[in-house]
Amino acid sequence: MTCDGKLPTVLTIDTSGPVAGCAVLAGGKIVHLTAMNHGLTHSETIMPAVDAALEGAGLRCGDVDVFAAVAGPGSFTGVRIGVCAVKGLAHATGRPCAAVHALEALAMNFYGFDGLCCPILDARRGQVYCAAFDMAGGYPTRVLEDAALPLGEFLATLPGERRLVFVGDGVPVHGGAVREALGARALIAPENLRDLRADAACMLAAIRPETWVSPAALRPIYLRAPQAVRERERRMQ
Amino acid sequence: MTCDGKLPTVLTIDTSGPVAGCAVLAGGKIVHLTAMNHGLTHSETIMPAVDAALEGAGLRCGDVDVFAAVAGPGSFTGVRIGVCAVKGLAHATGRPCAAVHALEALAMNFYGFDGLCCPILDARRGQVYCAAFDMAGGYPTRVLEDAALPLGEFLATLPGERRLVFVGDGVPVHGGAVREALGARALIAPENLRDLRADAACMLAAIRPETWVSPAALRPIYLRAPQAVRERERRMQ
Repeated sequence: MTCDGKLPTVLTIDTSGPVAGCAVLAGGKIVHLTAMNHGLTHSETIMPAVDAALEGAGLRCGDVDVFAAVAGPGSFTGVRIGVCAVKGLAHATGRPCAAVHALEALAMNFYGFDGLCCPILDARRGQVYCAAFDMAGGYPTRVLEDAALPLGEFLATLPGERRLVFVGDGVPVHGGAVREALGARALIAPENLRDLRADAACMLAAIRPETWVSPAALRPIYLRAPQAVRERERRMQ
Repeated sequence: MTCDGKLPTVLTIDTSGPVAGCAVLAGGKIVHLTAMNHGLTHSETIMPAVDAALEGAGLRCGDVDVFAAVAGPGSFTGVRIGVCAVKGLAHATGRPCAAVHALEALAMNFYGFDGLCCPILDARRGQVYCAAFDMAGGYPTRVLEDAALPLGEFLATLPGERRLVFVGDGVPVHGGAVREALGARALIAPENLRDLRADAACMLAAIRPETWVSPAALRPIYLRAPQAVRERERRMQ
């Protein structure tokens, strides 16, 4: 929050996963939200979405207090598109940036859930990007750090006694296996709460001004080295 | 669900409240969502949003299995805009319509919440449109019928022992009074989960094909007579 206790004006870009998202928080409410899961190229769809969001909201770039990017974990290229777009907007306007964690933003879909929210993203190569957050207090409180793990290993690390809800693009792939392993203790997010929404990321950026940085200091959040780096390292062994 | 167990293709329009929303469910996922809380005229913004949603999703009107409108309670004129737009689209394509209850769609923001979700809409004249849904099973199970009541009367009807979460455009107006009356038992939705989202309404329309009707049979859901009717009745007394 800003020093007068009001929520700041935030524009968020998310291209970290299959959904291209853009949202604006202004005047204490979400004034614009777009989420597109079209299979189209994020680098082509996201800037027109930003234009439409600002125009619809009657705002100019200079009216924004902080530009937020969902900075990962997620698709290597996707994360870079969002982070670079936000760096550009913030640099041009002299405003700070915020890097929002993808898995924490996903957990925001289950604010107040009496248990743990477990975001899982399909990380290919038999792994999920995963974490766990205690939601009972409202906003997410981290219980497990971000990791790239086989699903079974992740499930084995979860505490035994709590209700669990699974969200993220790993759900369509792994939801059946989660249900089989955990039974009724595991709730699976319905389609409307399954994906990351840029308005949730706006909220995390808004309530944590201590995380705002200069455009030059904004960094992607990667859990694994990119495929090209891994292949080069293999060749050099 | 359709007879093969798959979710149908649903296009939802919501102009029932301050947010103009449009969403498309296709291939078992939300492929497009727009939510605009700009204070602009719904009748001008909603059809371009529908065009953008279908074009982005690579769909034509004829690809949609059911057209859904958030049918109220809400703004009299707003409800009529959405219902009429959906009637037109469904009539032109020979598809059925679904009327989604605004308060139930709002409750979908708290799927799986271990308690009751209490949507409150600002109904002016010192009243809220209100209802309560048990969310513990996932999808909303109705506990209190829709009503237009002073806030205090509504709070007095809520059962004493359950956790409660309040959502809807009544929250910015009445959230403080709710907190004062109920203390820590009342959770207030954060901004990203406060408003009705058209993708939530898509889900309700999709899982309840038994509620689909012909365009001619689609009806708004009004809890009070319109102001013009009330004034005429007062003059005629």
